[in-house]
Amino acid sequence: MPKLPVIHASRILGEGTRFAVEQLDLEFSNGERRTYERMPGRGRGAVIVVALLDPDTVLLIREYACGLHAYELGLPKGRVEHGEDLLEGANRELKEEAGYGARRLRRIGTLSLAPTYMAHQTAVVLAEDLYPERLPGDEPEEPEVVPWRLDDLSSLIQREDVTEGRSIAALFMARELLRSGAL
Amino acid sequence: MPKLPVIHASRILGEGTRFAVEQLDLEFSNGERRTYERMPGRGRGAVIVVALLDPDTVLLIREYACGLHAYELGLPKGRVEHGEDLLEGANRELKEEAGYGARRLRRIGTLSLAPTYMAHQTAVVLAEDLYPERLPGDEPEEPEVVPWRLDDLSSLIQREDVTEGRSIAALFMARELLRSGAL
Repeated sequence: MPKLPVIHASRILGEGTRFAVEQLDLEFSNGERRTYERMPGRGRGAVIVVALLDPDTVLLIREYACGLHAYELGLPKGRVEHGEDLLEGANRELKEEAGYGARRLRRIGTLSLAPTYMAHQTAVVLAEDLYPERLPGDEPEEPEVVPWRLDDLSSLIQREDVTEGRSIAALFMARELLRSGAL
Repeated sequence: MPKLPVIHASRILGEGTRFAVEQLDLEFSNGERRTYERMPGRGRGAVIVVALLDPDTVLLIREYACGLHAYELGLPKGRVEHGEDLLEGANRELKEEAGYGARRLRRIGTLSLAPTYMAHQTAVVLAEDLYPERLPGDEPEEPEVVPWRLDDLSSLIQREDVTEGRSIAALFMARELLRSGAL
Protein backbone atom coordinates (compact mmCIF):
# COMPACT_ATOMS: atom_id res chain seq x y z
CA MET A 1 0.00 0.00 0.00
CA PRO A 2 1.47 3.44 -0.88
CA LYS A 3 2.54 5.78 1.88
CA LEU A 4 -0.12 8.42 2.60
CA PRO A 5 0.71 12.04 1.76
CA VAL A 6 1.66 14.35 4.61
CA ILE A 7 -0.92 17.04 5.46
CA HIS A 8 1.17 20.19 6.01
CA ALA A 9 -1.80 22.48 6.68
CA SER A 10 -5.58 22.51 6.54
CA ARG A 11 -8.19 25.26 6.75
CA ILE A 12 -11.98 25.50 6.46
CA LEU A 13 -13.48 27.85 3.87
CA GLY A 14 -17.06 29.04 4.36
CA GLU A 15 -17.07 27.79 7.96
CA GLY A 16 -20.53 27.37 9.43
CA THR A 17 -22.27 27.26 6.05
CA ARG A 18 -24.03 24.11 4.92
CA PHE A 19 -21.51 23.28 2.21
CA ALA A 20 -18.23 24.27 3.85
CA VAL A 21 -14.98 23.23 2.19
CA GLU A 22 -11.73 22.06 3.76
CA GLN A 23 -8.50 22.92 1.98
CA LEU A 24 -5.50 20.63 2.53
CA ASP A 25 -1.85 21.32 1.65
CA LEU A 26 -0.46 17.89 0.78
CA GLU A 27 2.96 16.45 0.09
CA PHE A 28 2.99 13.06 -1.63
CA SER A 29 5.66 10.45 -0.90
CA ASN A 30 7.38 11.31 -4.21
CA GLY A 31 7.75 14.94 -3.09
CA GLU A 32 4.91 16.33 -5.25
CA ARG A 33 2.89 19.03 -3.53
CA ARG A 34 -0.77 19.83 -4.15
CA THR A 35 -3.56 21.78 -2.48
CA TYR A 36 -6.79 19.73 -2.53
CA GLU A 37 -10.29 20.67 -1.44
CA ARG A 38 -12.79 18.37 0.18
CA MET A 39 -16.25 18.56 1.71
CA PRO A 40 -16.25 17.46 5.35
CA GLY A 41 -18.85 14.89 6.36
CA ARG A 42 -21.89 16.18 8.20
CA GLY A 43 -23.17 15.17 11.59
CA ARG A 44 -23.22 11.63 12.88
CA GLY A 45 -23.07 9.77 9.55
CA ALA A 46 -25.66 8.28 7.26
CA VAL A 47 -27.32 4.93 6.68
CA ILE A 48 -28.82 3.15 3.68
CA VAL A 49 -31.14 0.23 4.36
CA VAL A 50 -31.55 -3.02 2.42
CA ALA A 51 -34.78 -4.29 3.99
CA LEU A 52 -35.90 -7.81 3.07
CA LEU A 53 -39.66 -8.42 3.17
CA ASP A 54 -38.80 -12.08 2.51
CA PRO A 55 -35.50 -13.66 1.40
CA ASP A 56 -36.19 -12.76 -2.25
CA THR A 57 -37.84 -9.33 -1.92
CA VAL A 58 -36.32 -5.97 -1.06
CA LEU A 59 -38.24 -2.76 -0.27
CA LEU A 60 -37.60 0.22 -2.55
CA ILE A 61 -39.14 3.65 -2.14
CA ARG A 62 -40.06 6.24 -4.72
CA GLU A 63 -39.40 9.82 -3.65
CA TYR A 64 -38.69 13.24 -5.07
CA ALA A 65 -34.98 13.88 -5.66
CA CYS A 66 -34.36 17.62 -5.71
CA GLY A 67 -30.84 17.28 -7.20
CA LEU A 68 -32.29 15.78 -10.39
CA HIS A 69 -35.80 17.33 -10.11
CA ALA A 70 -37.22 13.86 -10.69
CA TYR A 71 -38.84 10.99 -8.80
CA GLU A 72 -36.24 8.33 -8.07
CA LEU A 73 -36.61 4.71 -7.05
CA GLY A 74 -34.03 3.61 -4.49
CA LEU A 75 -33.37 2.36 -0.98
CA PRO A 76 -34.51 4.09 2.24
CA LYS A 77 -31.70 6.20 3.65
CA GLY A 78 -30.98 9.17 5.83
CA ARG A 79 -28.81 10.73 8.48
CA VAL A 80 -28.25 9.31 11.93
CA GLU A 81 -29.72 11.60 14.58
CA HIS A 82 -28.42 12.67 17.96
CA GLY A 83 -28.76 9.90 20.54
CA GLU A 84 -29.08 7.11 17.98
CA ASP A 85 -26.55 4.49 16.93
CA LEU A 86 -26.34 3.46 13.27
CA LEU A 87 -28.76 0.54 13.56
CA GLU A 88 -31.34 2.62 15.48
CA GLY A 89 -31.07 5.30 12.79
CA ALA A 90 -31.55 2.68 10.07
CA ASN A 91 -34.65 1.28 11.79
CA ARG A 92 -36.15 4.77 12.25
CA GLU A 93 -35.56 5.67 8.59
CA LEU A 94 -37.15 2.37 7.55
CA LYS A 95 -40.22 3.11 9.69
CA GLU A 96 -40.49 6.68 8.37
CA GLU A 97 -39.90 6.00 4.70
CA ALA A 98 -41.17 2.45 4.14
CA GLY A 99 -43.62 1.87 7.01
CA TYR A 100 -41.76 -1.16 8.40
CA GLY A 101 -39.60 -1.87 11.42
CA ALA A 102 -37.02 -4.66 11.59
CA ARG A 103 -36.30 -7.11 14.42
CA ARG A 104 -32.87 -7.94 12.95
CA LEU A 105 -30.42 -5.27 11.72
CA ARG A 106 -26.79 -5.81 10.66
CA ARG A 107 -24.19 -3.50 9.20
CA ILE A 108 -22.79 -5.20 6.09
CA GLY A 109 -20.50 -2.50 4.70
CA THR A 110 -19.67 1.14 4.21
CA LEU A 111 -20.05 3.25 1.06
CA SER A 112 -18.39 6.54 0.25
CA LEU A 113 -19.93 9.11 -2.06
CA ALA A 114 -17.07 10.73 -4.00
CA PRO A 115 -13.98 9.82 -1.96
CA THR A 116 -11.62 12.06 -3.93
CA TYR A 117 -13.36 15.20 -2.66
CA MET A 118 -16.06 14.23 -0.12
CA ALA A 119 -15.61 12.78 3.37
CA HIS A 120 -19.21 11.46 3.43
CA GLN A 121 -19.65 7.83 4.39
CA THR A 122 -22.82 5.76 4.53
CA ALA A 123 -23.27 2.55 6.49
CA VAL A 124 -25.08 -0.20 4.59
CA VAL A 125 -27.55 -1.94 6.90
CA LEU A 126 -29.32 -5.21 6.15
CA ALA A 127 -32.77 -5.31 7.80
CA GLU A 128 -34.67 -8.57 8.21
CA ASP A 129 -37.66 -9.96 10.10
CA LEU A 130 -39.85 -6.96 9.28
CA TYR A 131 -43.16 -5.90 10.84
CA PRO A 132 -45.48 -3.05 9.85
CA GLU A 133 -44.82 0.18 11.76
CA ARG A 134 -44.96 3.69 10.43
CA LEU A 135 -43.31 6.71 12.05
CA PRO A 136 -44.08 10.23 10.81
CA GLY A 137 -41.10 11.61 8.84
CA ASP A 138 -40.22 15.10 7.71
CA GLU A 139 -40.95 14.31 4.05
CA PRO A 140 -43.50 16.61 2.35
CA GLU A 141 -45.29 13.52 1.00
CA GLU A 142 -45.25 9.86 2.01
CA PRO A 143 -42.87 7.86 -0.23
CA GLU A 144 -44.42 5.09 -2.30
CA VAL A 145 -43.11 1.64 -1.31
CA VAL A 146 -42.16 -0.65 -4.20
CA PRO A 147 -41.22 -4.27 -3.37
CA TRP A 148 -38.64 -5.62 -5.84
CA ARG A 149 -37.31 -9.12 -6.43
CA LEU A 150 -33.60 -9.48 -5.61
CA ASP A 151 -33.16 -11.79 -8.60
CA ASP A 152 -34.39 -9.06 -10.93
CA LEU A 153 -31.76 -6.36 -10.40
CA SER A 154 -30.99 -6.65 -14.11
CA SER A 155 -34.21 -4.87 -15.15
CA LEU A 156 -34.00 -2.49 -12.19
CA ILE A 157 -30.65 -1.02 -13.30
CA GLN A 158 -32.01 -0.40 -16.79
CA ARG A 159 -34.75 1.91 -15.49
CA GLU A 160 -34.24 5.64 -16.02
CA ASP A 161 -35.48 6.43 -12.51
CA VAL A 162 -32.86 4.21 -10.85
CA THR A 163 -29.55 6.06 -10.86
CA GLU A 164 -28.16 6.41 -7.35
CA GLY A 165 -24.74 4.73 -7.07
CA ARG A 166 -25.16 3.97 -3.36
CA SER A 167 -28.57 2.32 -3.80
CA ILE A 168 -27.38 0.16 -6.71
CA ALA A 169 -24.14 -0.73 -4.92
CA ALA A 170 -25.92 -1.62 -1.65
CA LEU A 171 -28.45 -3.85 -3.44
CA PHE A 172 -25.76 -5.83 -5.26
CA MET A 173 -23.56 -6.00 -2.14
CA ALA A 174 -26.40 -7.48 -0.10
CA ARG A 175 -27.33 -9.97 -2.82
CA GLU A 176 -23.71 -10.98 -3.42
CA LEU A 177 -22.96 -11.46 0.28
CA LEU A 178 -26.21 -13.34 0.90
CA ARG A 179 -25.70 -15.66 -2.08
CA SER A 180 -22.03 -16.31 -1.37
CA GLY A 181 -22.87 -17.30 2.20
CA ALA A 182 -20.69 -14.51 3.62
CA LEU A 183 -23.63 -13.29 5.75
CA MET B 1 -45.57 8.31 -11.52
CA PRO B 2 -46.26 11.22 -9.09
CA LYS B 3 -46.60 14.75 -10.43
CA LEU B 4 -43.37 16.73 -10.01
CA PRO B 5 -43.42 19.65 -7.55
CA VAL B 6 -43.65 23.16 -8.97
CA ILE B 7 -40.48 25.26 -8.65
CA HIS B 8 -41.75 28.70 -7.58
CA ALA B 9 -38.32 30.30 -7.30
CA SER B 10 -34.64 29.42 -7.36
CA ARG B 11 -31.48 31.27 -6.40
CA ILE B 12 -27.75 30.49 -6.24
CA LEU B 13 -25.93 30.97 -2.93
CA GLY B 14 -22.15 31.37 -2.97
CA GLU B 15 -22.18 31.95 -6.74
CA GLY B 16 -18.80 31.48 -8.39
CA THR B 17 -17.37 29.41 -5.52
CA ARG B 18 -16.44 25.81 -6.12
CA PHE B 19 -19.24 24.37 -3.99
CA ALA B 20 -22.09 26.77 -4.81
CA VAL B 21 -25.60 25.88 -3.66
CA GLU B 22 -28.93 26.37 -5.43
CA GLN B 23 -31.97 27.04 -3.27
CA LEU B 24 -35.38 25.99 -4.64
CA ASP B 25 -38.83 27.01 -3.35
CA LEU B 26 -41.00 23.96 -4.08
CA GLU B 27 -44.70 23.20 -3.95
CA PHE B 28 -45.58 19.50 -3.97
CA SER B 29 -48.73 18.17 -5.67
CA ASN B 30 -50.40 17.79 -2.23
CA GLY B 31 -49.88 21.52 -1.55
CA GLU B 32 -46.92 21.07 0.85
CA ARG B 33 -44.25 23.74 0.44
CA ARG B 34 -40.55 23.32 1.17
CA THR B 35 -37.30 25.13 0.43
CA TYR B 36 -34.63 22.61 -0.65
CA GLU B 37 -30.96 23.14 -1.38
CA ARG B 38 -28.95 21.32 -3.99
CA MET B 39 -25.44 21.39 -5.45
CA PRO B 40 -25.51 22.11 -9.18
CA GLY B 41 -23.50 19.78 -11.44
CA ARG B 42 -20.17 21.06 -12.64
CA GLY B 43 -18.97 21.43 -16.21
CA ARG B 44 -19.62 18.94 -18.95
CA GLY B 45 -20.35 15.88 -16.83
CA ALA B 46 -18.29 12.99 -15.60
CA VAL B 47 -17.45 9.45 -16.69
CA ILE B 48 -16.56 6.23 -14.92
CA VAL B 49 -14.92 3.50 -16.99
CA VAL B 50 -15.35 -0.28 -16.76
CA ALA B 51 -12.41 -1.38 -18.91
CA LEU B 52 -12.16 -5.09 -19.76
CA LEU B 53 -8.64 -6.41 -20.32
CA ASP B 54 -10.32 -9.66 -21.36
CA PRO B 55 -13.95 -10.79 -20.91
CA ASP B 56 -13.26 -11.84 -17.28
CA THR B 57 -10.88 -9.11 -16.10
CA VAL B 58 -11.55 -5.47 -15.26
CA LEU B 59 -8.93 -2.78 -14.61
CA LEU B 60 -9.01 -1.10 -11.20
CA ILE B 61 -6.73 1.70 -10.08
CA ARG B 62 -5.39 2.56 -6.65
CA GLU B 63 -5.19 6.28 -5.95
CA TYR B 64 -5.20 8.75 -3.12
CA ALA B 65 -8.69 9.86 -2.10
CA CYS B 66 -8.45 13.19 -0.30
CA GLY B 67 -12.03 13.01 1.05
CA LEU B 68 -11.13 9.95 3.12
CA HIS B 69 -7.34 10.61 3.39
CA ALA B 70 -6.78 7.04 2.24
CA TYR B 71 -5.76 5.07 -0.83
CA GLU B 72 -8.84 3.70 -2.54
CA LEU B 73 -9.23 0.94 -5.11
CA GLY B 74 -11.83 1.75 -7.75
CA LEU B 75 -12.57 2.40 -11.39
CA PRO B 76 -10.89 5.11 -13.51
CA LYS B 77 -13.07 8.20 -13.65
CA GLY B 78 -12.98 11.91 -14.22
CA ARG B 79 -14.60 14.95 -15.75
CA VAL B 80 -15.28 15.40 -19.43
CA GLU B 81 -13.19 18.25 -20.84
CA HIS B 82 -14.06 21.00 -23.28
CA GLY B 83 -14.19 19.71 -26.85
CA GLU B 84 -14.66 16.06 -25.85
CA ASP B 85 -17.75 13.90 -25.97
CA LEU B 86 -18.38 11.40 -23.18
CA LEU B 87 -16.66 8.47 -24.90
CA GLU B 88 -13.59 10.55 -25.79
CA GLY B 89 -13.39 11.72 -22.18
CA ALA B 90 -13.66 8.12 -20.98
CA ASN B 91 -10.87 6.99 -23.31
CA ARG B 92 -8.61 9.86 -22.20
CA GLU B 93 -9.17 9.12 -18.51
CA LEU B 94 -8.42 5.45 -19.18
CA LYS B 95 -5.14 6.37 -20.91
CA GLU B 96 -4.15 8.80 -18.14
CA GLU B 97 -5.08 6.66 -15.14
CA ALA B 98 -4.66 3.07 -16.35
CA GLY B 99 -2.26 3.33 -19.30
CA TYR B 100 -4.67 1.76 -21.78
CA GLY B 101 -6.77 3.00 -24.69
CA ALA B 102 -9.90 1.24 -25.96
CA ARG B 103 -11.00 0.59 -29.55
CA ARG B 104 -14.60 -0.02 -28.43
CA LEU B 105 -16.45 2.24 -25.99
CA ARG B 106 -20.15 2.13 -25.09
CA ARG B 107 -22.24 4.04 -22.59
CA ILE B 108 -24.17 1.46 -20.54
CA GLY B 109 -25.85 3.66 -17.95
CA THR B 110 -25.89 6.78 -15.81
CA LEU B 111 -25.23 7.07 -12.08
CA SER B 112 -26.14 9.91 -9.77
CA LEU B 113 -24.21 10.74 -6.62
CA ALA B 114 -26.73 11.88 -4.02
CA PRO B 115 -29.82 12.71 -6.07
CA THR B 116 -31.74 14.26 -3.18
CA TYR B 117 -29.27 17.16 -2.98
CA MET B 118 -26.72 16.89 -5.82
CA ALA B 119 -27.28 17.33 -9.55
CA HIS B 120 -24.07 15.42 -10.40
CA GLN B 121 -24.40 12.63 -12.94
CA THR B 122 -21.76 10.20 -14.16
CA ALA B 123 -21.94 8.22 -17.40
CA VAL B 124 -20.91 4.57 -17.05
CA VAL B 125 -18.75 3.58 -20.04
CA LEU B 126 -17.80 0.01 -20.95
CA ALA B 127 -14.39 -0.08 -22.66
CA GLU B 128 -13.25 -3.14 -24.60
CA ASP B 129 -10.55 -4.14 -27.10
CA LEU B 130 -7.79 -2.41 -25.11
CA TYR B 131 -4.24 -1.53 -26.19
CA PRO B 132 -1.40 -0.05 -24.14
CA GLU B 133 -1.22 3.74 -24.34
CA ARG B 134 -0.38 6.14 -21.56
CA LEU B 135 -1.22 9.85 -21.55
CA PRO B 136 0.24 12.14 -18.88
CA GLY B 137 -2.47 13.10 -16.35
CA ASP B 138 -2.59 15.79 -13.71
CA GLU B 139 -2.26 13.31 -10.85
CA PRO B 140 0.65 13.93 -8.44
CA GLU B 141 1.63 10.25 -8.75
CA GLU B 142 0.83 7.58 -11.30
CA PRO B 143 -2.04 5.37 -10.08
CA GLU B 144 -1.27 1.68 -9.59
CA VAL B 145 -3.26 -0.54 -11.96
CA VAL B 146 -4.86 -3.62 -10.38
CA PRO B 147 -6.54 -6.16 -12.70
CA TRP B 148 -9.49 -7.87 -10.99
CA ARG B 149 -11.61 -10.85 -11.97
CA LEU B 150 -15.24 -9.96 -12.67
CA ASP B 151 -16.37 -13.21 -11.05
CA ASP B 152 -14.68 -12.20 -7.80
CA LEU B 153 -16.60 -9.04 -6.90
CA SER B 154 -17.61 -10.80 -3.70
CA SER B 155 -14.15 -10.46 -2.14
CA LEU B 156 -13.66 -7.00 -3.67
CA ILE B 157 -16.65 -5.52 -1.83
CA GLN B 158 -15.37 -6.87 1.49
CA ARG B 159 -12.11 -4.90 1.23
CA GLU B 160 -11.81 -1.81 3.43
CA ASP B 161 -10.23 0.23 0.59
CA VAL B 162 -13.18 -0.36 -1.75
CA THR B 163 -16.00 1.97 -0.71
CA GLU B 164 -17.09 4.17 -3.60
CA GLY B 165 -20.76 3.62 -4.43
CA ARG B 166 -20.33 4.55 -8.08
CA SER B 167 -17.40 2.16 -8.64
CA ILE B 168 -19.19 -0.76 -6.97
CA ALA B 169 -22.45 0.02 -8.80
CA ALA B 170 -20.74 0.33 -12.20
CA LEU B 171 -18.87 -2.97 -11.76
CA PHE B 172 -22.03 -4.91 -10.89
CA MET B 173 -24.04 -3.13 -13.63
CA ALA B 174 -21.50 -4.12 -16.27
CA ARG B 175 -21.30 -7.71 -15.04
CA GLU B 176 -25.09 -8.05 -14.75
CA LEU B 177 -25.73 -6.61 -18.21
CA LEU B 178 -22.95 -8.69 -19.82
CA ARG B 179 -24.14 -11.92 -18.18
CA SER B 180 -27.82 -11.34 -18.92
CA GLY B 181 -27.02 -10.75 -22.59
CA ALA B 182 -28.45 -7.21 -22.46
CA LEU B 183 -25.18 -5.85 -23.95
